[in-house]
Amino acid sequence: MHIYDLTVPQLSATLRNLDRWLTLASAHAQDHQVSVDSLLNARLAPDQYMLVRQIQVACDNAKYIAGRLAAKEWPSHPDTESTFEQLRSRIGSVLEYLGTFARDDFEEVERRKIKLPWMKEDEWLAAYDYLVGFALPNFYFHIVTAYAILRHKGVKLGKNDFLGRLPIQS
Amino acid sequence: MHIYDLTVPQLSATLRNLDRWLTLASAHAQDHQVSVDSLLNARLAPDQYMLVRQIQVACDNAKYIAGRLAAKEWPSHPDTESTFEQLRSRIGSVLEYLGTFARDDFEEVERRKIKLPWMKEDEWLAAYDYLVGFALPNFYFHIVTAYAILRHKGVKLGKNDFLGRLPIQS
Repeated sequence: MHIYDLTVPQLSATLRNLDRWLTLASAHAQDHQVSVDSLLNARLAPDQYMLVRQIQVACDNAKYIAGRLAAKEWPSHPDTESTFEQLRSRIGSVLEYLGTFARDDFEEVERRKIKLPWMKEDEWLAAYDYLVGFALPNFYFHIVTAYAILRHKGVKLGKNDFLGRLPIQS
Repeated sequence: MHIYDLTVPQLSATLRNLDRWLTLASAHAQDHQVSVDSLLNARLAPDQYMLVRQIQVACDNAKYIAGRLAAKEWPSHPDTESTFEQLRSRIGSVLEYLGTFARDDFEEVERRKIKLPWMKEDEWLAAYDYLVGFALPNFYFHIVTAYAILRHKGVKLGKNDFLGRLPIQS
């Protein structure tokens, strides 16, 4: 299996699912007369990131995964979103970035040493260790936590919204 | 990357993390004089699976992923757990099952058609589509939701507990 197939299409599909949840959350706020802030600032524990931050970090993880594995510069996003529309625009920007990737971009991946910002100078992860043991779990961590916060706040979402459309064959 | 490396070690590592959270949750219940049931029956939305069910399903997903991709029979678990110890024993049983896998077991994976119980008779997923687009997201869905419920109930967990030990090199 090519590392492109492990990453770019699924990261994109998941961000498109997230985008749809935010549309539903925005409609929920309007329908139930709750403020957008009460959703965006919601969290499940006092020392947990709020919804808005979960979404920002999920977006960042998606761009980091593709960008780090291909050593390709990613767009900067300054974490200033305060509306669902702005968050959806950030998702759109990451989707656009992911859309620039092709299989060729990952040619060097086997030899790449992934250094994360918090690592000591001489520390690194092998590309596949980074992907399987850190990057994918961490991406889903923030995606699922965003979903869980929305569910906790009463937004009508279900497992099918999480999974999205599956590439079923027949 | 071999499909074994994409699945068995990381599923096992994640279940070992989950096992550790349950030890902490059990200690939390004792320290704070809260009943084990109030944790095991907790959920974040009225129509969401309770913690105990999230853990059962996460365990099932781990065995299904390896079992389906290798067409190897998995152990049955009848969903009767009502204590942290019983849940940890179920995790242990799945870890033991995952420990029986080797690279060779996945030799036929490219040709395998994965049929899920809810699919129509002629429907199937290609093995890698199943893994990347359904099985891994679904596994992490239940793992992260279990983590989120524990966090919501005040169990002291943090991101490092979620990620576990990373295979950092230097």
